[in-house]
Amino acid sequence: MLDKVFQNINRINPIVHCITNFVTVNDCANIILACGGSPTMAYDFREVADITSKTNALVLNMGTVSDNDAMITAGRRSNELNHPVIIDPVGVGGSRFRVDTFRQLADSMQFSVIRGNISEIKAIATGKSDIRGVDATEADKITENNVYEIAAMAKQLSIKMKSVIVISGPIDIVANKEIAYLVRNGHPIMAKITGSGCMSTAMLGAFCGGNPDDILEASLASTVTMGVCGELAYEKTAAARGGTMTFRLHLIDQVSLVTPEIICEMMRIEKI
Amino acid sequence: MLDKVFQNINRINPIVHCITNFVTVNDCANIILACGGSPTMAYDFREVADITSKTNALVLNMGTVSDNDAMITAGRRSNELNHPVIIDPVGVGGSRFRVDTFRQLADSMQFSVIRGNISEIKAIATGKSDIRGVDATEADKITENNVYEIAAMAKQLSIKMKSVIVISGPIDIVANKEIAYLVRNGHPIMAKITGSGCMSTAMLGAFCGGNPDDILEASLASTVTMGVCGELAYEKTAAARGGTMTFRLHLIDQVSLVTPEIICEMMRIEKI
Amino acid sequence: MLDKVFQNINRINPIVHCITNFVTVNDCANIILACGGSPTMAYDFREVADITSKTNALVLNMGTVSDNDAMITAGRRSNELNHPVIIDPVGVGGSRFRVDTFRQLADSMQFSVIRGNISEIKAIATGKSDIRGVDATEADKITENNVYEIAAMAKQLSIKMKSVIVISGPIDIVANKEIAYLVRNGHPIMAKITGSGCMSTAMLGAFCGGNPDDILEASLASTVTMGVCGELAYEKTAAARGGTMTFRLHLIDQVSLVTPEIICEMMRIEKI
Repeated sequence: MLDKVFQNINRINPIVHCITNFVTVNDCANIILACGGSPTMAYDFREVADITSKTNALVLNMGTVSDNDAMITAGRRSNELNHPVIIDPVGVGGSRFRVDTFRQLADSMQFSVIRGNISEIKAIATGKSDIRGVDATEADKITENNVYEIAAMAKQLSIKMKSVIVISGPIDIVANKEIAYLVRNGHPIMAKITGSGCMSTAMLGAFCGGNPDDILEASLASTVTMGVCGELAYEKTAAARGGTMTFRLHLIDQVSLVTPEIICEMMRIEKI
Repeated sequence: MLDKVFQNINRINPIVHCITNFVTVNDCANIILACGGSPTMAYDFREVADITSKTNALVLNMGTVSDNDAMITAGRRSNELNHPVIIDPVGVGGSRFRVDTFRQLADSMQFSVIRGNISEIKAIATGKSDIRGVDATEADKITENNVYEIAAMAKQLSIKMKSVIVISGPIDIVANKEIAYLVRNGHPIMAKITGSGCMSTAMLGAFCGGNPDDILEASLASTVTMGVCGELAYEKTAAARGGTMTFRLHLIDQVSLVTPEIICEMMRIEKI
Repeated sequence: MLDKVFQNINRINPIVHCITNFVTVNDCANIILACGGSPTMAYDFREVADITSKTNALVLNMGTVSDNDAMITAGRRSNELNHPVIIDPVGVGGSRFRVDTFRQLADSMQFSVIRGNISEIKAIATGKSDIRGVDATEADKITENNVYEIAAMAKQLSIKMKSVIVISGPIDIVANKEIAYLVRNGHPIMAKITGSGCMSTAMLGAFCGGNPDDILEASLASTVTMGVCGELAYEKTAAARGGTMTFRLHLIDQVSLVTPEIICEMMRIEKI
């Protein structure tokens, strides 16, 4: 069912405009290239409208957010042009400043997809800023016990935000207001490198940029691709007795090597 | 003929001051180290004149350009000291802002080398800003059919800008007003990682910094080194059935491992 | 003797707030994860107090320093909370601006650890700014001939700055006012990649964040870990006939794989 999504990316080679953090920006650029897109990074508010007009999708990542003029300018322009806008509210619950920044962005534009870990998505839903660091807290973690409840919350948030919601974790959730997919792919080692989440978001930019008329399916395909490549990369890493950097190398490598056939064969999704 | 270029780099260990984008800055620093130079990155306009005075070359990269005060201050100081100044007008044709920024830089200083892909170099020659993203467009691409015509254009631009012109692509061109070298090294996979172009520019900084009195030969040697290492890295990547990140690793690895002898043996250059 | 240091890191999983340069920020984040910590990078002065309050340690790195409001705000808040503050005065002797910046930081907060190469540490001790680039100069280099003299200088500086002093080089020095440890681990290839120093500092953040009551031992354990992993990574690199990027990969890999037992077995320290 995801075949068309992959075909569109290969046909269009979507250009993805990223306004992202400088911690993982190189990984984000490389994973966009690996999955068949082309990244362009431009940050000055005087040019972002011009740049984003020529691209297929906009990715906003709050990882090292400061002034948000460029994000707002690019987001509004993308909305005018009906380009998909994907937001990663990194560490949104970590400070009042981030909660406020996210609210300003949300008030200024319509997001096609919001992707975060469960703590970030909860912070958006509640407006609270009591999270330590940028990882999901232990108490919040998605498990088989709470996943259906969280999927229901994701559907509610999708209604409120008029966006597809993607929650990354031990089980990933991809939801719009009616449907939630649970994705049981991926590997725990993904949490031991920086950028797993940011790369997932960047890849959503390429997938949605190539499939602007089917954001839910594009988001599902992107999430499954990341999970499957995480599994394949872990196998390679274990075989080489490698550590976290070997894993990071194989993760992006696999995105550049994997075929739609392998992805569809390995994907473990449940529709609810 | 390039022996002396390599010897000078090893003798001088040129320090290269880079004011570059934050997408590929780490790769740029590592490739400068790999080829025998030493990178120093400083961006605040209050210190760049001080910093650049103590270095051997200045690299300016417009990838994530915003305010250009630091670039102008460092460029002017480098001109006063007769340090080579290398500019990479990343995505210059992508926005009016970038066209203007390039013009301000060009009006403020003399470049020793301008390096870009064919779309960027054409944008400089014409002042147009109709490019999508940061890669060369399909229509512009250098082929055996148009390369002599493009080389002639490069010579003309060299006269106009009083700079050596380096155009990266399937065939690289290194030209001053009288001579153009065509370099038929490299591999298409170089376009599948971010930073191939930026790294080429950073390496030009080290090569020109070690050879300030022979910018054309230094630019040729640097371009050939990148191309040859691209080929060697691809061989290693293919042998390991690796993807794009394996290639990136081997590309910088090979720059740190390759000898002048291997480079001179593998280079495929045509002088016109 | 270092067992407890490692146990505390694994128990606490310290969150390390880094305000660092964008050249090596990705490596810093990954090495913090590799050694058992969790990085968070936030730079806007409007949120750094909020962010840093929820972490276990603060790392300040002057590599691409510009305005220092965020560093000062975060540093003061960390001091109030008795969080360890680690400073890396990258290239401090390279410009008057950096000398002044360091002085402003030092006047605004108390550092738990100052880590630099010998040229940087000398620049702090003397206030001079005559260094070229960001590497230790040849004349300054630590050798068996001058190491005891430098260790004595480190003790003096420790008294003056009320900080543990860590000097990286062919022989590393970890000193407080009374004790200096000489660490004869590591490998010269560490100087051929960017970020060896920055990663050492980032790792100090995790080690001190997990051991706020024993900064000297934590600093020693961190320094030894980096040196031992450098040796192990070099072995892997040589076996694979790899270059500098292969080494970088193995360096962080080894930090994620090495055990306290191996570190204690391989460490070569002298207490003076």
